[in-house]
Parts: sequence; C-alpha cells; structure tokens
Amino acid sequence: MDLFRQKVYIIIYGVNTPAGKAFDIGLLVAILLSVFTIMLETVEGVDYIYHRELVILEWIFTAVFTLEYALRIFVSKKPLKYIFSFYGLIDLLSILPMFLSVFIKGSHILSSFRILRLLRLFRVFGLMEFMRESSRLKVAILASRAKIMVFLYTVLIIAVLIGTLMYYIEGPENGFTNIPKSVFYTIVTLTTVGYGDMVPTTPLGQFLSMLLMIIGYGIIAVPTGIVGVEIAREVGKSMKENYKTDPEHRKLNGIVCAHCNKEGHWDDAEYCYNCGHTLNI
Amino acid sequence: MDLFRQKVYIIIYGVNTPAGKAFDIGLLVAILLSVFTIMLETVEGVDYIYHRELVILEWIFTAVFTLEYALRIFVSKKPLKYIFSFYGLIDLLSILPMFLSVFIKGSHILSSFRILRLLRLFRVFGLMEFMRESSRLKVAILASRAKIMVFLYTVLIIAVLIGTLMYYIEGPENGFTNIPKSVFYTIVTLTTVGYGDMVPTTPLGQFLSMLLMIIGYGIIAVPTGIVGVEIAREVGKSMKENYKTDPEHRKLNGIVCAHCNKEGHWDDAEYCYNCGHTLNI
Amino acid sequence: MDLFRQKVYIIIYGVNTPAGKAFDIGLLVAILLSVFTIMLETVEGVDYIYHRELVILEWIFTAVFTLEYALRIFVSKKPLKYIFSFYGLIDLLSILPMFLSVFIKGSHILSSFRILRLLRLFRVFGLMEFMRESSRLKVAILASRAKIMVFLYTVLIIAVLIGTLMYYIEGPENGFTNIPKSVFYTIVTLTTVGYGDMVPTTPLGQFLSMLLMIIGYGIIAVPTGIVGVEIAREVGKSMKENYKTDPEHRKLNGIVCAHCNKEGHWDDAEYCYNCGHTLNI
Amino acid sequence: MDLFRQKVYIIIYGVNTPAGKAFDIGLLVAILLSVFTIMLETVEGVDYIYHRELVILEWIFTAVFTLEYALRIFVSKKPLKYIFSFYGLIDLLSILPMFLSVFIKGSHILSSFRILRLLRLFRVFGLMEFMRESSRLKVAILASRAKIMVFLYTVLIIAVLIGTLMYYIEGPENGFTNIPKSVFYTIVTLTTVGYGDMVPTTPLGQFLSMLLMIIGYGIIAVPTGIVGVEIAREVGKSMKENYKTDPEHRKLNGIVCAHCNKEGHWDDAEYCYNCGHTLNI
Repeated sequence: MDLFRQKVYIIIYGVNTPAGKAFDIGLLVAILLSVFTIMLETVEGVDYIYHRELVILEWIFTAVFTLEYALRIFVSKKPLKYIFSFYGLIDLLSILPMFLSVFIKGSHILSSFRILRLLRLFRVFGLMEFMRESSRLKVAILASRAKIMVFLYTVLIIAVLIGTLMYYIEGPENGFTNIPKSVFYTIVTLTTVGYGDMVPTTPLGQFLSMLLMIIGYGIIAVPTGIVGVEIAREVGKSMKENYKTDPEHRKLNGIVCAHCNKEGHWDDAEYCYNCGHTLNI
Repeated sequence: MDLFRQKVYIIIYGVNTPAGKAFDIGLLVAILLSVFTIMLETVEGVDYIYHRELVILEWIFTAVFTLEYALRIFVSKKPLKYIFSFYGLIDLLSILPMFLSVFIKGSHILSSFRILRLLRLFRVFGLMEFMRESSRLKVAILASRAKIMVFLYTVLIIAVLIGTLMYYIEGPENGFTNIPKSVFYTIVTLTTVGYGDMVPTTPLGQFLSMLLMIIGYGIIAVPTGIVGVEIAREVGKSMKENYKTDPEHRKLNGIVCAHCNKEGHWDDAEYCYNCGHTLNI
Repeated sequence: MDLFRQKVYIIIYGVNTPAGKAFDIGLLVAILLSVFTIMLETVEGVDYIYHRELVILEWIFTAVFTLEYALRIFVSKKPLKYIFSFYGLIDLLSILPMFLSVFIKGSHILSSFRILRLLRLFRVFGLMEFMRESSRLKVAILASRAKIMVFLYTVLIIAVLIGTLMYYIEGPENGFTNIPKSVFYTIVTLTTVGYGDMVPTTPLGQFLSMLLMIIGYGIIAVPTGIVGVEIAREVGKSMKENYKTDPEHRKLNGIVCAHCNKEGHWDDAEYCYNCGHTLNI
Repeated sequence: MDLFRQKVYIIIYGVNTPAGKAFDIGLLVAILLSVFTIMLETVEGVDYIYHRELVILEWIFTAVFTLEYALRIFVSKKPLKYIFSFYGLIDLLSILPMFLSVFIKGSHILSSFRILRLLRLFRVFGLMEFMRESSRLKVAILASRAKIMVFLYTVLIIAVLIGTLMYYIEGPENGFTNIPKSVFYTIVTLTTVGYGDMVPTTPLGQFLSMLLMIIGYGIIAVPTGIVGVEIAREVGKSMKENYKTDPEHRKLNGIVCAHCNKEGHWDDAEYCYNCGHTLNI
C-alpha cells in the first residue's frame, strides 16, 4: 500500500518524472477545458442547444477534480496541512460550487474560479525558468510595495478631489448624477481607459478633464519607473547570487517536500532543506 | 495645564507613542468615513431614504474635526504659524463648507476636499518607509521638472495644431463643432483615453487620427523614460547617502517640532535640527 | 544563361548594388500600392465608380509578383529550399488569393496579407542599422520570453476570475450577457482600451472595475520594466561585442547566401560563414 | 540708425537683457491670447455675441505680429537667410492666413498654426535648463530613430494583417464596412485608445481583438524601453561632457548669431563659434 501511495505522490507532486509531467499537462488541459465549458453554458444560444451535454461534461470534470482532491489528501503525509494550505483551499473551492448547485441554482458558475489552480502549474512550461522568473517578479513588486502604496494613495486623493469638482462643474444634468459616479469617471479618465459613457460638456469640465488625462498619461511613468528599477536591481542581484552560491550551476528538481510542502530543492538534493525530511519517499 | 497641553501635543503631532498612532488611525478612518458620507448624500436613492441620518453624521464628523482643529491651535507653540501653514489651511477648509452650508445651500459637498488631510497621514502605514519613499518620488519628479515642462509644451503645440487641422478636415457636420472641442478630441486621442463621443468619419480625418494615436502611444515613452531614469538615480543616491551619513542605520522619530513644524528628526534627536528647540516638550 | 541567372540573382537578393537597391525600393512601393488597391476595392463608394480599374490594377500587381516569384525560383541554387522557406511561402501566399478568386468570389481580399512581404524589406532603409536594431529588439523580447509568459498567464487568470465576478455582479440585464463577454470586458478594461460598449451600472460592479483599471494601469509597468531591462542589457552587450569582435568596424554586405539563404555577412566576406559557399556567384 | 538696429536686434534676438526677456514673455502671451481668440471665434454661442470684438482683436494681433516680422527682417544682417529659415517661414505663416481671409472666407482659422511660434520661446522658462533638456530629449529620440522605425514598420504590418482579418470575420453587417475602417479599428485598439464606435460582435472577432489589445498593451513596452535607455545614456553622457569640456561650469548666453542664426554660445563668448562673426553687434 505504502508503495502505491509513494508512486501516486511522485506523480501528483513531482515534476521531473515523465508521469509527473504528463499529469501536470493533463491537469492544465482539464482545468482550461472545464472553465471553457462553464463559460459556454452562460452563452444563451449555445446552452439552448447543448445544455445536456455541457452539464454532463461539467459533472465529469468535477468528478475528476474530486478524485484528484481525494488522492492529494490520501497521499499527503500531513493531510490537514495540505487541506488548509493555500492550494488545498483552492482545490476544494474548485469542486464545491458544482455540488452546491444541486441545492442553490446557478452557483456552479463559480466553478470558473478553478482557473486559480493554474497558479500551481506555472512549472509545466520549462519548469524552473518560469518559477525563477515569477519569483523574481514577485520580489520586484514586493520591494516597491511602499512606493506603489504611496502612488495608490495619491491616486485616491486625486480621484476624490477631482471627482467632487467634476460633480460641481458638470452636475446631474450632464450625466454626473452623484459623486461616486464622478469618482468613477475620474478613475476611468486618469487610467486612460475612457469608456465614453460619461463625457464632460461644459468648457470648464472639458478643461479639467484634459488636465486629468495629461496627469494620468504622465503618472503612468511613476509605477513604470518604480517597477523597472526594481526589476533591473533584481535581475542584477540574482545573476550575482547564482554565481556566488551555485558555482556548478545546478538546477532545481521541482519536488515538493511531502513533510512540509516546501519547493525549490536542488537537483541533487536528497533531503528537504527546510525540514530535513527525505525527498525520496 | 501645561502638562495637559504637552500630552495632547504628543498625541496629535507625535507618531511613535501608542496614543499618537491610535489617534492617527482614528483620524484616517474618520476622514474616509466622512468623505464616504458626503458622497452617499449625492446619491439620490440613498439620500431620499437616509437624508436625516446622513446630515446628522456629517454634523458629528464636522464637530469632531472642529474640536481637533481647536486643539491643534491650542497646543501649538506658535498658533498663527500653524493656522497659515499648508496643513492648517487644509484643516480649516475641511470644516468651513459645512458651516457655510447653513447660509449657502449645497456648499457642504465641498467638505469632500478634506480628503486632502490624508496627505498628512502617509505616516500611518509603516511610518518612515513611506515618508522616505514619497519624498524620493517627489525628488525624482522635481528633478525631471524641466524635462516634463518641455514635454507638456510639446503636447500643447501638437494639440492646438492637430486640433485646428481636425476642425478643418471633419468640420461641424461630423461633430467637430469648434476648435476647443477639436483640441479636446486631440488630447483625448493623444493620451489614449479615447471616449468615442467624437469620432472622425472622413478618410483624411481617420488617417490623421491614426497618426495622432501612434504619436501618443510613442511619446508616452518620454515621461516614462524621464521619470524612470530619475527614480533609478534617486534610489542609487539615497542608498549611498544612507550608508554615508548614517552608519548606525538610525530611524526617524516622526515628531513634528512644536516650534517650527519641521519633521524628519532622528530617533535619538533631542533638539530640532532646524530651529534648535527641544523636541521633548 | 548562367551569367543571366547570376545577374538576376544579385539584383533580387543583393542589396549593395544600385540595381539591387532600386529593385528593393520598387518592390516596396509595389507592395504598398497593391495593398492600397485591395483596400480601396472594399470601400463601396470608390469601388462602385472604379471597379474595373481596380480589378485591372490588382491583376497587374499579381502578374508582377508572379513573375518575381518565378524568377526567385529560377535563380535559386536550391529552389525547393526557397519555396518552403518562410519568405518563399509568404511570396506564394501573396499571389495565390488572386488566382483563387477566379473560383472563390471574394478571396482576393486576402491578397492584403502580402503586406508581410515588407518584413524582408527592412533592409531598404539604411540597411544594416535596421537589421541590427530589429535583431536586437528580437533578442531583447526573446530573452524576456519567460517573464512575458508569466505575465500573460497572470493576465489570463485575472481575466477569467474578474470576468466571472462581473457576470455575477452585473448580470445579463446590464449587458453582461455571458461570461465570454464579461471576460472580453475585463480585458478591454485591464488593457485600458475601454470601448464603452459595456459599462458597469451597479455600485459593486463600478468599484470592481475601478480596481481593475488601477491594476491594469499598474501592471503595464511589468512588461515595460522587463523589456526595458532587456533592451538596456542588449544594447550594452552589443556595444561591447562590436568592439571586441570587430575592431575595424566593418559593415555587413546584405547579401543572402544563394546556397543556404543565410544573411549577415561582413562587407569583405567572400564565402558564406554558414555553409562556406562563395558569395560571388 | 545702425545703433537703433543694434538695440532692436538685442531686444528681439537676445535673452539675457531685461528688455529681451520682457519681449519674449510679451510675445508668448500675445501668441497664446491670439490663438485663444481664434478658437473662441469658432464657438458658435460666443461668436454670435462677440463677433465684432473678436475680429478686431484678431486684426490687432495680426498687426502686431506683422510689425514684429518686419522688424526681424529689418534688423537681420542677412534678411533672406532669416526669411527662408524655419522660424522665418513660421513667422510668415502666422500672419498670412489673416490677410488671405480678405479674399478666401474662413482661411483666418489657420492662423492658429502660429502656436508653432512657441517653439522659439522655450527659452523663456529658466532659459538654458530647458534648452539643454529639450536638446537632450531630441538627441535621445534621434538616437533611437532606427529602433522606432522598426517599431512603426511592425505596427503597420500588424494593422494591415489584423485589419483584413477583422474585415473578413466581422464583415460590413457588424460595422466593419471596409478594410480602411478595419485598419482604423485595429490601430484604435492596438494603441489602447478604444473609441468604441466599432466593436466586434462575433466570438472570433472578440477573441482576435483581445489578442490585439494584449499585444498593444505589451508592445508599448518597446518604445518605452528604447527611449528610456537612450535618455539614461544621454543623461550619463552629458553629465560627463559637462565636466570634461567645461570645468568652470559656464552657462550659455542665449544670443542668436546675427550672421548665421546659430544659437548656443557660452556666456563669455565674444564671437560666434560657427562663423566667427562678433556677437556684440
């Protein structure tokens, strides 16, 4: 029995084995197809003709994901840790709505949240390069966290100020029926989205809007500059680190520790660097 | 009495004490809630049902901010300096409209300008990191002031030139009723906002608009490049400075000098670096 | 005969001779004019009056390109290699639709795909500078391939998640008739395009859309930062390489090898660096 | 007489004297006011009431600019050179339309092209800092000329390709009445302008449009990266140069050589660096 659990564990959590890779790709395709099925069901013309087929497909996908969820719990050394981990909750969330839809009509649409499961499957494409890049991007964005907050804070103040002014200048007779709608207009303009559902008609409103557009057009430079600098720094740093800490340019093996769920072990690692548990189950 | 003034002073102007921090967070929440209240009052459906409650809430918030304003004057060493300082005027501006609304109907809406008071509360989030970042951003933007002016000047010239051309090409029969409106269209297009309320219908007008879009799409690179370079320089400089002038990595204490209203004193500072007045009132 | 083939070869594939340059410019103009002709034919007013003339023009252009295609095959040392090369297929694709239009009405419109032939003519403008720049851009974009994939993957997840939420919040009664349309709206908003054909009307939908706009406005910083860093690196690298490998600053000659179709030979090269075949046919 | 000409010359072409500065500011204000007058005349409501006043104002401005134009010719050492210089032609262009309007009704609107005269007045604001920044921006943009051309070339190819596809997919029944309009739609979407006057309604058209938006959203990174790198290089270079060639940090004097119309002389220059003519007329 234990041997079976080990084998399943390597298939589900591992990446470097052909079986593990095939499993990941199959899962990716299944998630995309199932989300596509849910989407189609909301398209009236399609649903009218193929309602039965779509519902059957959805139940098949849900059955597969439920089986997978059960297997993940079954092979985990610490099932509770998995169940309450970030990915564990997403896995649950991606099957629950379908079962709930038996009682609450329409709730199965929320199954499309299972697109979040793709987050785990970054590793399918070229594996480590992607994980390194995504963690680098994460670090770059986190490092500029404070700068981004200052930026958002400024955007909030501008939006409320100019939103109020626009409400005063244009008024309900020109479509600016209340301040929340005016603030919506301000954000739509500042971010250069520009729906055009509300448009200033008074000269003063048009002038203020032009100012707003140019401000929006200009301050986009701020987050760009911030993140750009951080990315440049991050790229430089990780290049140095790579050469410093890893002179032989080893790769990562992509195994998730069965004990503590940590990833990022060297290709030749035999024990988890985090908890010391063996990686060869 | 003086002891009471000192205590209040530390609560209102200080940041590092638990009481000071609690006061700042309370103020932040009060400002946001009061602005939200004013916004809701302009939403017809909500105001129709809850008019009485909203008005009472607004008067409560105004009472609180008026009390705070009085206290700030009371505990200041130089009240006049505070009253005519940037933040002093904003504090006044955020309570005046409500009292004016007794005489001038509708003026209380302007109370939402009190959102500007948030500027002082940057320090609530992680305190010093934010102040440093926002001052760094400010320096970066100021340093590229001349470049930005050249950029805006160019945008103005393009807008008037192409606005006139579009008025000539499209004419009033296609919605380009006058040059100011054409200039508005030009800015809307150049900044890639694109409301769609005015759209060129002649082939020549469409061609010119396409040129304009590509220009707009391209010159967004200019402010981005400018600010990016300045941010990179600023980050590099401040890192060096930090290590040069502050080998022990002290932090700032967040106290505002009672004498000259300056901020930015070191954690172990006993006297204001600006006016020499003691910081331990 | 062989002398004739050599001469034609140099005219068609070469760049540095006056005849070769003239041929390239002539081809560029012919492609642009022929695409313009096809476009005009779809404009009802123009086609109504000049239908005959436009059709004749199109057949003339097609005849010219067919002749050119035949010549390219005729002078190639390895005709099959040319026919199945990227440019060979495009050359075929740019004449086929016109002949097909004899059997399938309307298919000649696809002739406008011959705009792809312009890709080969980059070299017309200042020749080598352009080839170097475009290959540099290509390298910069390829180098950030992994980062860009991570970015697109994230955009996909955000689009499906928020698209589903918007469908739930706004619903078919506000124009969000199905999830695919909601996802379309999400992408339109996230990329700051903002058509305005679908606009949120519920407060919650407007709030979520504002979040989406600010996210979209912010994450544009990510590809910008990525590509910017790569371009900077690429520029730095190629400057060093230029000086290292080419101390005499030779230029490229722009000849395409008749044997293996490789480009990028030094000005004084006599043999192809790739297959060793002589370049002086 | 010659003394008078010298004095006028210094006022008109010089910058460092109080009179010269006052003249420049006066000119700037006059240009802006005159353009504003022309704009107002096209606004029906305003023109209806103040037609007479606006026409008189326009004639006054034209008279002033004509006098200035005559003076510029009069004090020039080589009048013909001035007349056919870039600024000379703009000066003429800014007065001609008004005189032409006597014969051709409506042509006076073109007077708003005199906004181009502002180009010469960059120097009004903080003088040299601006000239240096604008020349730096110009160098940065020129240096990335080839990269920008490659970029535009790519945009052209994408626009024609996808424009044709959209015409095929959506067709005239969905508003894509011809290929030029489809290309217009493609550019509107690619540059993230998004008017919303044409919107895809077929699933395939929506899918292609989403691809287009993401491409557009992504490739904005390319010009940004290009110009950013060039600006960074330019800033670095000019800082070095300033210190190398100008150890005493002299400033420029802002005088335009009366002989050859060159600008950019050092503050202590007595002769034109270009033609050797004395600068002290």
